[in-house]
Amino acid sequence: MSGKPIVPLVEYEMASDEVRAVYDDIMATRKSDWINNFWKVLAHDPPHLRRTWESLKEIMGLGGALDPLTKEMIYIAVSVTNGCEYCTYSHTASARAKGMTDAQLMELLAVTGKANETNRLANALRPPVDVQFEPRG
Amino acid sequence: MSGKPIVPLVEYEMASDEVRAVYDDIMATRKSDWINNFWKVLAHDPPHLRRTWESLKEIMGLGGALDPLTKEMIYIAVSVTNGCEYCTYSHTASARAKGMTDAQLMELLAVTGKANETNRLANALRPPVDVQFEPRG
Amino acid sequence: MSGKPIVPLVEYEMASDEVRAVYDDIMATRKSDWINNFWKVLAHDPPHLRRTWESLKEIMGLGGALDPLTKEMIYIAVSVTNGCEYCTYSHTASARAKGMTDAQLMELLAVTGKANETNRLANALRPPVDVQFEPRG
Amino acid sequence: MSGKPIVPLVEYEMASDEVRAVYDDIMATRKSDWINNFWKVLAHDPPHLRRTWESLKEIMGLGGALDPLTKEMIYIAVSVTNGCEYCTYSHTASARAKGMTDAQLMELLAVTGKANETNRLANALRPPVDVQFEPRG
Amino acid sequence: MSGKPIVPLVEYEMASDEVRAVYDDIMATRKSDWINNFWKVLAHDPPHLRRTWESLKEIMGLGGALDPLTKEMIYIAVSVTNGCEYCTYSHTASARAKGMTDAQLMELLAVTGKANETNRLANALRPPVDVQFEPRG
Amino acid sequence: MSGKPIVPLVEYEMASDEVRAVYDDIMATRKSDWINNFWKVLAHDPPHLRRTWESLKEIMGLGGALDPLTKEMIYIAVSVTNGCEYCTYSHTASARAKGMTDAQLMELLAVTGKANETNRLANALRPPVDVQFEPRG
Repeated sequence: MSGKPIVPLVEYEMASDEVRAVYDDIMATRKSDWINNFWKVLAHDPPHLRRTWESLKEIMGLGGALDPLTKEMIYIAVSVTNGCEYCTYSHTASARAKGMTDAQLMELLAVTGKANETNRLANALRPPVDVQFEPRG
Repeated sequence: MSGKPIVPLVEYEMASDEVRAVYDDIMATRKSDWINNFWKVLAHDPPHLRRTWESLKEIMGLGGALDPLTKEMIYIAVSVTNGCEYCTYSHTASARAKGMTDAQLMELLAVTGKANETNRLANALRPPVDVQFEPRG
Repeated sequence: MSGKPIVPLVEYEMASDEVRAVYDDIMATRKSDWINNFWKVLAHDPPHLRRTWESLKEIMGLGGALDPLTKEMIYIAVSVTNGCEYCTYSHTASARAKGMTDAQLMELLAVTGKANETNRLANALRPPVDVQFEPRG
Repeated sequence: MSGKPIVPLVEYEMASDEVRAVYDDIMATRKSDWINNFWKVLAHDPPHLRRTWESLKEIMGLGGALDPLTKEMIYIAVSVTNGCEYCTYSHTASARAKGMTDAQLMELLAVTGKANETNRLANALRPPVDVQFEPRG
Repeated sequence: MSGKPIVPLVEYEMASDEVRAVYDDIMATRKSDWINNFWKVLAHDPPHLRRTWESLKEIMGLGGALDPLTKEMIYIAVSVTNGCEYCTYSHTASARAKGMTDAQLMELLAVTGKANETNRLANALRPPVDVQFEPRG
Repeated sequence: MSGKPIVPLVEYEMASDEVRAVYDDIMATRKSDWINNFWKVLAHDPPHLRRTWESLKEIMGLGGALDPLTKEMIYIAVSVTNGCEYCTYSHTASARAKGMTDAQLMELLAVTGKANETNRLANALRPPVDVQFEPRG
């Protein structure tokens, strides 16, 4: 393995105004004083950086139908299913910062593991969808 | 597409005592009077049927660190990420039976979609894991 | 299989003004007079509908570093790798509407298949990343 | 993580004539003087090495319906979707050697990310395939 | 869902000589008198058809280090993990034709399911690779 | 990348009696004197540790319809398809301990690679399932 990012990290000091505006909003929203490396690589495409951050802020924040910790745990479940190393470390850290206990993490993973198992049993044996499961309407 | 299951459905009437014992426990646990097709195909391997049901009952039930609805939503996130059709229909139906609203479903999917997107951006650009995200201990 | 959508299709006639504004922009951008079913299910979450459409319009359109047909072909490669049925039909149709020939489709699929094969050979045999492949900078 | 390959690298010096013939063709085709590690692990199965190289040469080369750079970019999109680290480094390097700019890379990844997102929204909401998208013939 | 193939089936009667030569070899190798639909869609790219068939014949046949039934079962495990419907039906049928019993199928699926589960537990918890598991050499 | 596990390793010395009972059974079953790191991270959820080990012991052991080496090879095929690094190292080591030769490994990977390729060709071209492949009954 290499360990080097595919594009250099765009540090705050060398960033354009467009990128700095996003970095500033990330830090203000999170009440933190640093930017994690995911954004520093995405910054090579400033409009994509801005769109991705704004969508994420809107989706992951307060005021929706799900609380922020539940959403971080769903993020972990997906990242683990896809095997994304960076995302597993970063979203586990975020979920812990939002109060996730180790007991909750382990139970989340038990569910994630079991879903990955039964997904394949259904893929393999091809049971017809029961009429009771059909959506109404 | 075919639509036929890979092995015939094992209906209650023709099931062995070992299989019926599992079917009875499924219905008693769920307070329902029918068995969904997933179990009817799995019943061709009775010990596997029993193990899968018992694990699932233990993992998905009450009394853990996460509530049952949160766990059903995690199940949906994984099933959708893997593209399992049967599992998407069955776990969406289960989550709705446990009170999931359409607003919660749509928000869960916004998170699931975004995680699948950013997982690939991280896979592609390979940002190093920030030291702030490293697990303690 | 069921064939029914998980949530009802939101047809133009019953859509809210917020949804209609997105539908109108989709039709104007595409110079077409109909809305495909993907948007009609996403419309149950109007802000998500709007964000998804606006990102897609910005990413897939003219004026970027890649031409629109190349981008549709990349979309097909990903959809096929993930096994998404709806996306395979819809993006193949879009790419054909933008001029993709059957020869181009078949060659795109030869590449996609080969990448899926060699990805697993590399996952399995774990060759170290050659220093010649390390990103500069 | 280990970092060691699962089987030792077969260096040119210790390679059989059958393997050397493939190595020689790789270097001649690429006008280079080295062999990357992917081939050195695959060389433990000489017929598989030969078949894989010959298919890849035929598929990825000049003279097809798609130009070689477009094909490298499709390879990146698939490798990133699958999370293959070696393939991401090697095909990004190859695409850059064929002229891919950072702007093209970032746009390719925006498309890849968005496809991974919308694939899951379609998997989840199960919109029926529109009749307008049905293949003719 | 649509159910229509993306490109029309190339039937023997309308096939070019190049395609017929492959079809004839498929039927001769399998001692059968029909061609399954996978080859009939791939036939739109005759060199790709030929290469894919010849690789598959070489890999899946007699005389290797693994017997043909074991190889069909590995094919099922992969197809089920990827959720490929056509491949699941076709390779299950092929494995049965080579003698796979339902008990073998169910055990293969128990292993496949369990591997999919523990893969995600390892992806999530990131245990270091034990030195005892490091490849020699 | 980080390389640190998400939760600390639970070593035998600090383990609870419940965890030690599982560790003892793992070592007795395998006739070994050490525990690999996968179990040491799973030990943070002792009932999950026990369930996972007991299922795995039952599924992977002697006395089933498939021999233990075949099952380890299926495990490798799945782990490689999913890109699980830890699982690839650990199950390759297990399979070698059970007698897998390098020739068998390379042939298993040729099949796994080819299945991943043809799965995508079928996902893309959507051939209808042939009636000859439909399950009986």
